[in-house]
Amino acid sequence: MGFLEDKKRTLTNLELAIREGLVDEEIIPILNKINNLSNYYTTSSCIGRVGIMEIPKDKNPKLYSRWLGKWHHYATYDEMFDALKERKNGYIVFVMNSPILHIACKDIESAKKMLELAIHSGLKASSIKSVSDRRVIVEILTTYKVDAPIGEDGELFVDDNYLKFLLDYSNLKLKKAREILIRWVNRLDELR
Amino acid sequence: MGFLEDKKRTLTNLELAIREGLVDEEIIPILNKINNLSNYYTTSSCIGRVGIMEIPKDKNPKLYSRWLGKWHHYATYDEMFDALKERKNGYIVFVMNSPILHIACKDIESAKKMLELAIHSGLKASSIKSVSDRRVIVEILTTYKVDAPIGEDGELFVDDNYLKFLLDYSNLKLKKAREILIRWVNRLDELR
Repeated sequence: MGFLEDKKRTLTNLELAIREGLVDEEIIPILNKINNLSNYYTTSSCIGRVGIMEIPKDKNPKLYSRWLGKWHHYATYDEMFDALKERKNGYIVFVMNSPILHIACKDIESAKKMLELAIHSGLKASSIKSVSDRRVIVEILTTYKVDAPIGEDGELFVDDNYLKFLLDYSNLKLKKAREILIRWVNRLDELR
Repeated sequence: MGFLEDKKRTLTNLELAIREGLVDEEIIPILNKINNLSNYYTTSSCIGRVGIMEIPKDKNPKLYSRWLGKWHHYATYDEMFDALKERKNGYIVFVMNSPILHIACKDIESAKKMLELAIHSGLKASSIKSVSDRRVIVEILTTYKVDAPIGEDGELFVDDNYLKFLLDYSNLKLKKAREILIRWVNRLDELR
């Protein structure tokens, strides 16, 4: 009964996180849809985002990277230029991160079904991230991404017009990635 | 005996591909090391690369994208600028693709061992890509990547100095990604 107990505990924590406003609004109905399936529950999620990071060159990037700005909505030029004012040290990297979900599946068979539905729906970077007796974790992911270094140590190597192009491009990719996600969400009933 | 037969056939095809020069030179010793493990064989691989793609806006990118240039060695500025002369239509995107390998594993247990060794060696984007009765496919991958749109329809939105920075940055990331790959290769004997 390990799986069901884990699911209950995780969903209680999710409810608390939602009440505290820690979960992307847009993704909540998707989480509910998955958590209503008996062999699955979600462990983490993001509806996708565009942002600008500063990544240190000599220190551990996992620990010392910081966001100059990040947006789950479609950010405006002004928001981008305001965020860039905060730059100081390290590589400045403009990113678009795909929507991502981690789904705990009861066993390999249910993980396989979830993975295949995701791939067939167009979420082609999806995969199984870990396998244990208690659960199998499937990662739901599109292939859409932007990872563009644009400067270093406070200096930008690109001009404002390019930055506007980069933001438009990234917002468009984010929109397309979300459309693919919704295609998969609309087919989740097949896993009942 | 499905797995062993598939392995034999795949390795015969690999030998042919190597003789025809279709396999990255640098990756061949790595493939041999994996293929000497009894529960595993490789199905595809790339030692990582830097390149520039043209991606159409309205047509299927899977079918109609084309490389202006791609390099498995550390490309020079001249090679990059020469490649850019070929630009015509669509988005121009500068990319660094991580080293990648696909490894067929005999069963879930052996796939799990391969995946865990990869993750623990620093290949943190590794995962299980598919599961069937005949084999489980593990993808070996680093988190290092560059995906930077730099122009569209023949026009570049960045200057030569930025392009040099982008190439240096990408070559550095490619080098780091390969170092992590080698860390994993050096531990493959643990799967004997």
